[in-house]
Amino acid sequence: MNIKITGSGSYIPNRIVTNKDFESHQFLDEAGNALAYSNEVVAEKFRQITGIDERRYVEDNLLTSDIAFFAAERAIEDAGIDPETLDYIIFAHNFGNVKPDAIQADMVPSLAARVKHSLRIKNPSCVAYDILFGCPGWVEGVIQAQAYIKSGMAKRCLVIGAETLSRVVDHHDRDSMIYSDGAGASVIEGTPDGDRGVLAHVTASYTYDEANFLYFGGSYNKEHDQNIRYIKMYGRKIYEFALNHVPQAMKECLEKSGVAIGDLKKILIHQANEKMDEAIVHRFYKLHGIPMPERVMPMSIHKLGNSSVATIPTLYDLMLKGQLPDQELNKGDVVLFASVGAGMNINAIVYKI
Amino acid sequence: MNIKITGSGSYIPNRIVTNKDFESHQFLDEAGNALAYSNEVVAEKFRQITGIDERRYVEDNLLTSDIAFFAAERAIEDAGIDPETLDYIIFAHNFGNVKPDAIQADMVPSLAARVKHSLRIKNPSCVAYDILFGCPGWVEGVIQAQAYIKSGMAKRCLVIGAETLSRVVDHHDRDSMIYSDGAGASVIEGTPDGDRGVLAHVTASYTYDEANFLYFGGSYNKEHDQNIRYIKMYGRKIYEFALNHVPQAMKECLEKSGVAIGDLKKILIHQANEKMDEAIVHRFYKLHGIPMPERVMPMSIHKLGNSSVATIPTLYDLMLKGQLPDQELNKGDVVLFASVGAGMNINAIVYKI
Repeated sequence: MNIKITGSGSYIPNRIVTNKDFESHQFLDEAGNALAYSNEVVAEKFRQITGIDERRYVEDNLLTSDIAFFAAERAIEDAGIDPETLDYIIFAHNFGNVKPDAIQADMVPSLAARVKHSLRIKNPSCVAYDILFGCPGWVEGVIQAQAYIKSGMAKRCLVIGAETLSRVVDHHDRDSMIYSDGAGASVIEGTPDGDRGVLAHVTASYTYDEANFLYFGGSYNKEHDQNIRYIKMYGRKIYEFALNHVPQAMKECLEKSGVAIGDLKKILIHQANEKMDEAIVHRFYKLHGIPMPERVMPMSIHKLGNSSVATIPTLYDLMLKGQLPDQELNKGDVVLFASVGAGMNINAIVYKI
Repeated sequence: MNIKITGSGSYIPNRIVTNKDFESHQFLDEAGNALAYSNEVVAEKFRQITGIDERRYVEDNLLTSDIAFFAAERAIEDAGIDPETLDYIIFAHNFGNVKPDAIQADMVPSLAARVKHSLRIKNPSCVAYDILFGCPGWVEGVIQAQAYIKSGMAKRCLVIGAETLSRVVDHHDRDSMIYSDGAGASVIEGTPDGDRGVLAHVTASYTYDEANFLYFGGSYNKEHDQNIRYIKMYGRKIYEFALNHVPQAMKECLEKSGVAIGDLKKILIHQANEKMDEAIVHRFYKLHGIPMPERVMPMSIHKLGNSSVATIPTLYDLMLKGQLPDQELNKGDVVLFASVGAGMNINAIVYKI
């Protein structure tokens, strides 16, 4: 038995934040010194590397679990199922609920429990839990759903990825411009059709040297309380790590699936950074000895930024519903989901629609 | 194929905190008013209900992921396995790493990634992730390991439960006396012997009315910043909820296992509160129409308090290694693990040693 996505939903926050909106920020380097460039130059370099023009932030009255609920409602509606029939709600995030006026993460009860509560599901056999797995969390949630369905422990799962990174950024760190808020959700079910759905997956956790490439650290403004921490990354190390490991993991996954490289229609890669994503996909094709096809890599990062766990399910949802210009998905298409993030974790899924 | 525990370890923090150590605390009620009793009376009532004389706190230099690593090392040594052969590290907690001088939770990278890093495991195929599932997190981690092993996705998993609740308690709330720190870990593997290991499991998430019975809330001292939040609970509601649902879940699990009630040797119940645990087990036997056998319910709460996810694997480890007076486990014994906590989640496992 394979598993397939039978319903999809996403929530894109309303508040648009452009690169220009960072103009008055005082950007500092890791040592706390002012950058050698004007903010205009910083923003332009940033745009060239990441591809990001705009990102979305939630309004002050919303929490991660709220936008997850919106995406979940849409996925359930899209699947046309009774939510009471869900066996699992698997919620991937990394920072819990963070209020705009607070610095603490709130995750008791779990965000999955809050979504289940908001969905007004009564069935106690619907198990709701959260996973923390860095940006690859939503993809990993799908892999976990597969384990439950294949082992006979579940028939129908809801997998959510949601994050409000706008609440955990250091405004003195130019990397803060990368992060955004968003939520994506999918209903996952078994299918007797062995030729469709998830054909293969791979997951890897690199922790020996890489565990702290993404971390929670103090502000670059050394006058700020260094006990208050923010999402931080060693961008160059991550770039090199991703280039060295992600293409190989994608290739391994494709080989496991038995799908020929020429039959791969689209690669839905975690929207981390456009230059890095392009370099990964280029190298993936290079490993197969063929050039990267045009338009194989749909991107939402230009307008939506990097919303961590939410990027892939959101991208998939937008494409499926014809909302990404010049990029569509059709029945029978084989797509590759691939993600990399804190841990450092990497995963990939070959999926036939 | 069944799964079984092939190695067990725990870490009990060194710092002993007695009920007397709370003597100088200013306990308030939810509304912020001083309690009508002296702290001596509060402590004695507390002891009578919870059974707790002492609890353990970690030293200032340790984090949740550190004590998890200690327990994990012991479980691996006990199993006699090469840690490089682990397919999964599943880490259950609810509050992340919280430093003694800070209020923020740190969980990027995941605590599982940190443990894997500390274990010096190089194998990237060992997938490390965290789950948030309230106090039943460790039991749920074992159930997740079962899914991977039964579906052929894994052969060997490490499941950890660790928490440092001393870092998230409101010192003005007498419930703070309940909570403690601890870590337990188990190596889980498949066994071809269908008569041993995990014979059955049940899990339930009650979120419709119950999602906020355990929550993260402001100090009872209203002069404190109400944005700084602590573990909080509606004790009476939890007590009634647990009495109404946990015995039934345990009975359902035992029925699924096919084991007769008379063949059940021990019940390892989450060490939440002695009076509540006793009432649950009493009702469980009442549902079977027989009296509760003597010494069927080993307790560690008197000296160790309630360390959330860590209580069951720690209790199992102490018994297995002959460190709990008058309570032992022997090959062939059938035991029932049962837990209840934030979510509200309930789970149970029938396990034959």
